[in-house]
Amino acid sequence: MSSLACISEIARYEGQTVKLHGWLDNSTPRGKLLFVQLRDGTGRMQCVLRQGQVDDAQFEAVKRAGQESSLVITGSVKADPRSKVGFELVVSEVHVLQDAHEYPITPKEHGPAFLFDHRHLWLRSQRQFAILRIRHLCAKAIRDYFDSRGFVLLDSPIFTPNACEGTTTLFETEYFGQKAYLSQSGQLYQEAGAFAFGKTYCFGPTFRAEKSATRRHLTEFWMVEPEVAFAELPDIMELAEDFLCTVVAQVLASGRQYLEILERDLSALERVQKPFPRITYDEACRMLADLGVPVEPEDDFGAPHETALTKQFDRPIMVTHFPTAIKAFYMKEDPTNPLRALGVDVLAPEGYGEIIGGGQREDREDVLVRKIHEHKLPPEAFDWFLDLRKYGSAPHGGFGLGLERLVTWVCGIHHIRETIPFPRTIDRLTP
Amino acid sequence: MSSLACISEIARYEGQTVKLHGWLDNSTPRGKLLFVQLRDGTGRMQCVLRQGQVDDAQFEAVKRAGQESSLVITGSVKADPRSKVGFELVVSEVHVLQDAHEYPITPKEHGPAFLFDHRHLWLRSQRQFAILRIRHLCAKAIRDYFDSRGFVLLDSPIFTPNACEGTTTLFETEYFGQKAYLSQSGQLYQEAGAFAFGKTYCFGPTFRAEKSATRRHLTEFWMVEPEVAFAELPDIMELAEDFLCTVVAQVLASGRQYLEILERDLSALERVQKPFPRITYDEACRMLADLGVPVEPEDDFGAPHETALTKQFDRPIMVTHFPTAIKAFYMKEDPTNPLRALGVDVLAPEGYGEIIGGGQREDREDVLVRKIHEHKLPPEAFDWFLDLRKYGSAPHGGFGLGLERLVTWVCGIHHIRETIPFPRTIDRLTP
Repeated sequence: MSSLACISEIARYEGQTVKLHGWLDNSTPRGKLLFVQLRDGTGRMQCVLRQGQVDDAQFEAVKRAGQESSLVITGSVKADPRSKVGFELVVSEVHVLQDAHEYPITPKEHGPAFLFDHRHLWLRSQRQFAILRIRHLCAKAIRDYFDSRGFVLLDSPIFTPNACEGTTTLFETEYFGQKAYLSQSGQLYQEAGAFAFGKTYCFGPTFRAEKSATRRHLTEFWMVEPEVAFAELPDIMELAEDFLCTVVAQVLASGRQYLEILERDLSALERVQKPFPRITYDEACRMLADLGVPVEPEDDFGAPHETALTKQFDRPIMVTHFPTAIKAFYMKEDPTNPLRALGVDVLAPEGYGEIIGGGQREDREDVLVRKIHEHKLPPEAFDWFLDLRKYGSAPHGGFGLGLERLVTWVCGIHHIRETIPFPRTIDRLTP
Repeated sequence: MSSLACISEIARYEGQTVKLHGWLDNSTPRGKLLFVQLRDGTGRMQCVLRQGQVDDAQFEAVKRAGQESSLVITGSVKADPRSKVGFELVVSEVHVLQDAHEYPITPKEHGPAFLFDHRHLWLRSQRQFAILRIRHLCAKAIRDYFDSRGFVLLDSPIFTPNACEGTTTLFETEYFGQKAYLSQSGQLYQEAGAFAFGKTYCFGPTFRAEKSATRRHLTEFWMVEPEVAFAELPDIMELAEDFLCTVVAQVLASGRQYLEILERDLSALERVQKPFPRITYDEACRMLADLGVPVEPEDDFGAPHETALTKQFDRPIMVTHFPTAIKAFYMKEDPTNPLRALGVDVLAPEGYGEIIGGGQREDREDVLVRKIHEHKLPPEAFDWFLDLRKYGSAPHGGFGLGLERLVTWVCGIHHIRETIPFPRTIDRLTP
């Protein structure tokens, strides 16, 4: 009687006979031996078949089986110092469940279009396996952080009735005779949540119909958005800093094996420690001018500015007090200088740029009414949002972090599209 | 110097002076005393102001303050056996941050349309607070279950390119010159995931443009969908049973206080224990005929059938082997009777009905091609899905559970729309 095992837990079966379910990654005959690399979704290990010790028909069937054939293999677990997992399987029985041939993704190089066309299969490759494991660990670390600190998960709706900030980057759908828009951010709903629960967060898919085909943009991505009642800008900055340090530390502790597959420089992640440098927008502009990458007066940073700036530091930095004019209507003005907003962006090091944007919200009804007017927004869309300022208003704030930008940086990879199982971009809606 | 505290953790501050941030639920003057019920999002407690011990202006300001005014209160924590939280606050200082008046939701009765129009405020009431806390605990228990058992979180995409099962219940959007549809289920993508990672799950919002205005339907709801490679129907049934028992037990252990607010019959949840009764569709039809609620031959169950059937049992039941003709194209036919499918529905007791649907998937390419043809589906939409049968096919299966149906049952409430922060139904898209 053999136990059903998986490769990631193979060590606990040393000396025992186990059954493995998996797929043939490759096989190499050498005389009477056949070396099969098996992957089972938890890891990869070598299985050794010796002619005479395995049924002849089974031996031949495996020898003929192509890449990605599905197998059920029984054998004994033997320590092997040359193996990455420390063990190999000495096979006594093997069944080819389905004999696959002409698997499209071979060890040779493929272009990105081909690979993304075959995303449903490409997920099986070692690098994608590692990236998506890190994605899971990041998502889990994010939820663990908020769940263990008294935040209530409050899912914001995806369908929203009004095109609050213009329709150009919104996806629209017919909703039983009305127009509905897919949410770009759950923040406004979290503000209602924070006044009900004190501290809330949402973490779900978010949609932007941006016509940007850059390596940092997806049309569909996951965003976590915490919101805290009675919090001011310094509280939100401390929260963002503590959050990011905790999440990166947890992923480093639990995902080192996957980061190693990706050949990530772990020391860059180990330096994600408090305190993060804090600089104002105006200070950052002076630095960028000195670095030869000047910012247009009162303008937002572009990718070149973020890259130049973050390369000056060994860890994430927090840039605060951006011009009010380039920030959203709900951001609170600095009372000492209304041209500057009580907002913060956290920029990741190594040139990765913005991963968190947040700040303190305008909590005064009259000022918010004026801002809605100044931004030429439809006031009737904000009746419910203004109610939050009528009934028990208080200082509050929060931030948003895009999961895929975090994963891109943690993995140390170039393009965001590999960090989500089935990426959606301006030119890709399949598979 | 006073610590900033929250009501749910007030016990640890007994005898100390603390500061609380919160909102006035109600206040009652009695002679020189003013009893303020404070809510802070973590709980509710009584704060006692005595004239002369609090600044006169502050005392008067609180006395005048309306329901939901925001307060900062400092005082000492005193044991009080009459209090639900076991403590009251003897106030030394209090500031009315914002004096609210004419809060729309008063202790009197309001109709559901009014309450849902004010959902952004209604979230603050005791019952909604309890239901949404239970929602969070259910979501967390679901993730904990899969995360601790080797499942990889693999978010399925929301934007899908093809209207795989007809467009009548799909929301459609313009996607850069193409049509995209909002996902009704992440299952097909999880099947790709299971062959890459062995065991995966997705847990995200799902969209159905059903024109049903029942107490069991939302147009936007959250669904968890695990998928397991090398699993057959009995494995999926065991998984569903173990999953449901574990989730309900965790919510009972961590959320008893919220279930008590809802006056939930806890014994009904405590009976959610293995083994669940297992009956086939044909057996169920005979039972229903005997109960005087006959099912049309080969037809699906309706709500009256589910209610009648589940009332015969004290715990969830698993109904298997529904007619193939009423099930999805991807469901595997029973090899001993192709008119019956290797699927399972889990029906919740107390008349709540279906909360889980799942089963084993068709893993043979030729049969799947025939089924796609029989169901009059566009074959080109399934090229990638058929690839999963070409390259390393194996038995596999999984299930889907709707979060809101689970929460409705766990809370023991009547209508699903209270179980999601901002419900979206055929006649509601706001706030």
